[in-house]
Amino acid sequence: MSEPLIVKTRFFTFAEPPHPLVLKSGVTLGPVTVAYELYGELNAARSNAILIFHAFTGDAHAAFYHEGDQKPGWWADMIGPGKAFDTDKYCVICSNVLGSCKGTTGPGSVNPATGKPYGLTFPVITIEDMVDVQKALLDHLGIKKLLSCAGGSMGGMQAMTWAVRYPESVHSAIVIAACHRHTAQQIAFHEVGRQAVVADPEWKDGDYYGRSMPARGLAVARMVGHITYMSWVSMEQKFGRKLLDKEKLGYDFSKDFEVQNYLEYRGKSFVERFDANSYLYLTKAMDYFDLAGGRKLSEAFKNIAADLLVISFTSDWLYPSSQSQEMVRALKADDVDVTYVEMQSDYGHDAFLVEFDDQTRAISSYLAKVQRERSLP
Amino acid sequence: MSEPLIVKTRFFTFAEPPHPLVLKSGVTLGPVTVAYELYGELNAARSNAILIFHAFTGDAHAAFYHEGDQKPGWWADMIGPGKAFDTDKYCVICSNVLGSCKGTTGPGSVNPATGKPYGLTFPVITIEDMVDVQKALLDHLGIKKLLSCAGGSMGGMQAMTWAVRYPESVHSAIVIAACHRHTAQQIAFHEVGRQAVVADPEWKDGDYYGRSMPARGLAVARMVGHITYMSWVSMEQKFGRKLLDKEKLGYDFSKDFEVQNYLEYRGKSFVERFDANSYLYLTKAMDYFDLAGGRKLSEAFKNIAADLLVISFTSDWLYPSSQSQEMVRALKADDVDVTYVEMQSDYGHDAFLVEFDDQTRAISSYLAKVQRERSLP
Repeated sequence: MSEPLIVKTRFFTFAEPPHPLVLKSGVTLGPVTVAYELYGELNAARSNAILIFHAFTGDAHAAFYHEGDQKPGWWADMIGPGKAFDTDKYCVICSNVLGSCKGTTGPGSVNPATGKPYGLTFPVITIEDMVDVQKALLDHLGIKKLLSCAGGSMGGMQAMTWAVRYPESVHSAIVIAACHRHTAQQIAFHEVGRQAVVADPEWKDGDYYGRSMPARGLAVARMVGHITYMSWVSMEQKFGRKLLDKEKLGYDFSKDFEVQNYLEYRGKSFVERFDANSYLYLTKAMDYFDLAGGRKLSEAFKNIAADLLVISFTSDWLYPSSQSQEMVRALKADDVDVTYVEMQSDYGHDAFLVEFDDQTRAISSYLAKVQRERSLP
Repeated sequence: MSEPLIVKTRFFTFAEPPHPLVLKSGVTLGPVTVAYELYGELNAARSNAILIFHAFTGDAHAAFYHEGDQKPGWWADMIGPGKAFDTDKYCVICSNVLGSCKGTTGPGSVNPATGKPYGLTFPVITIEDMVDVQKALLDHLGIKKLLSCAGGSMGGMQAMTWAVRYPESVHSAIVIAACHRHTAQQIAFHEVGRQAVVADPEWKDGDYYGRSMPARGLAVARMVGHITYMSWVSMEQKFGRKLLDKEKLGYDFSKDFEVQNYLEYRGKSFVERFDANSYLYLTKAMDYFDLAGGRKLSEAFKNIAADLLVISFTSDWLYPSSQSQEMVRALKADDVDVTYVEMQSDYGHDAFLVEFDDQTRAISSYLAKVQRERSLP
């Protein structure tokens, strides 16, 4: 075994005044800093670049280790030598999304115009805006066209958006456990989370930086999220009615069940690593996500020039297979070369972060196929 | 059309010291007041009584009108002359559950020993305790054996518990959209709701009576509940991505979508009609619900002498058909006379409060069958 490869997060700043980024809303924002990581080497033809998108609360650190890390990046099982996104073959890029709190400009960043964190003065951003920021990064890196781009959940929304918004800049897109628009139920779960945050008196209209975080509200928001990321079956298998360090029910308001403890742990650990305002902005961006925007879906997809791989998981009830299938039908109606795989899994929406064997098989052969069919070196 | 029948809530008090109610926890409670309503006449043989159980946040006012009411009771479509629970034939009783805030003793009631509301000094209660209180009420009313008992959701849990706990006191039980035990996911959704309540600084460890309610926390709790009561399809049909009084997205943190407004309305109106501590106690009671309690389910069911009708709804993902079917299999293994009906509905868990035609057909013929087969006058 060789030593684990140590990587560093890099930063790229653009949209400096007087050339700010124009957001989908029409509002301008700048400068914008993007945190990103690179794994593997760009080939001479610059034809082997793959852009990876993280999900809601993820970051640019998708694989390998940072100096001193005990654990590798969030998709290390999928990215590395010989893995699905094989860093011996491909140059893999992952950047933190606009609006997040992991190095890329977001509501917790300092507004250079005021010297204070943006808070709620940060503009409402969209999945399209995230993608535009990634496009600027690729331009900066001298990458004209991606071999592929891939992500799960909110990452899959970005992959779909790349295919629609920059048809000439992607050979393929891999859309995992995602959708083409947020539905009422998906919006509703986010709305509950947002209401939990803003109900916390510590939130102070988003102006809590340098004071205490709205920790209790954000923890509740994360708890409800976690339920939606798991499945009925995975919750039963992991917890069932298992009691927490006790022989019998306590008949008081202490925690009785392991599942209560798990949710508490998930809530508390989230608060330590994520910014409450970024929670609000990113959920809003997902809720705004609607590629067709009132048009027929096949109309929205008609300029897609990329090949697509769409993956869903049987037990994912947050972004169910039916939604992927609706997307696939519209893509097929537009004669897009789309491969659809529904993977059997009990892990619910989280499956894209767990089911590595099936995803690796599907993705590595898919990437080879795209290279072959598009005669890419 | 005749004038709407006006009914009144009645009250019965028992378990006066020194003869308190002994709860499942072993803790004693008393006196206990029960709010209940009666519709129809008890026949001479006292063989036509049906006990109706309300769900989580319901009350004893199941049918007809209170003086001045604009709307009848919560199951008025099911209870009345010629309806499923035909008050021309049956004497229908509905009581508010122990721990609630609708007339029956609960955490918001004044503890006679202190002259102050119980708050968190109220003992943790169970579905079994609710049923024991109902049994005391029936003893008081001189009803030895029920023709039937019926309810949806938490009401169905009570119906199952009657069949198990008082096998000689019920000819039949109608269990709708319910279960025999709470699963990890069901506990998890309740835990989120409880955490939202206790995170509200106004909650003050349950000692908020006479001050302000923990309104924002309780509203968030109710919002997440409402999502679980609806289905993906019913939310799409009712709301989809419909915008709220605006032509386009607002790109701010005001509400954009109708579903956000609906959840806010549901949250706010709930706070006006329900006590936050009762929310905690009743969710806890449901989470504790586990009729088998570690035994085989058929072992738990072996003393059942009642006939059972079990109803589930196709789109109910909170108490899914699979859980009813697990119960039915165990009942059949015990040779219980059980009829199972899975009703097609898009209304999710709320279907038991909406799908009156199918329920009426199933229940009215079922009640006639029980009377006939058990030779009841």
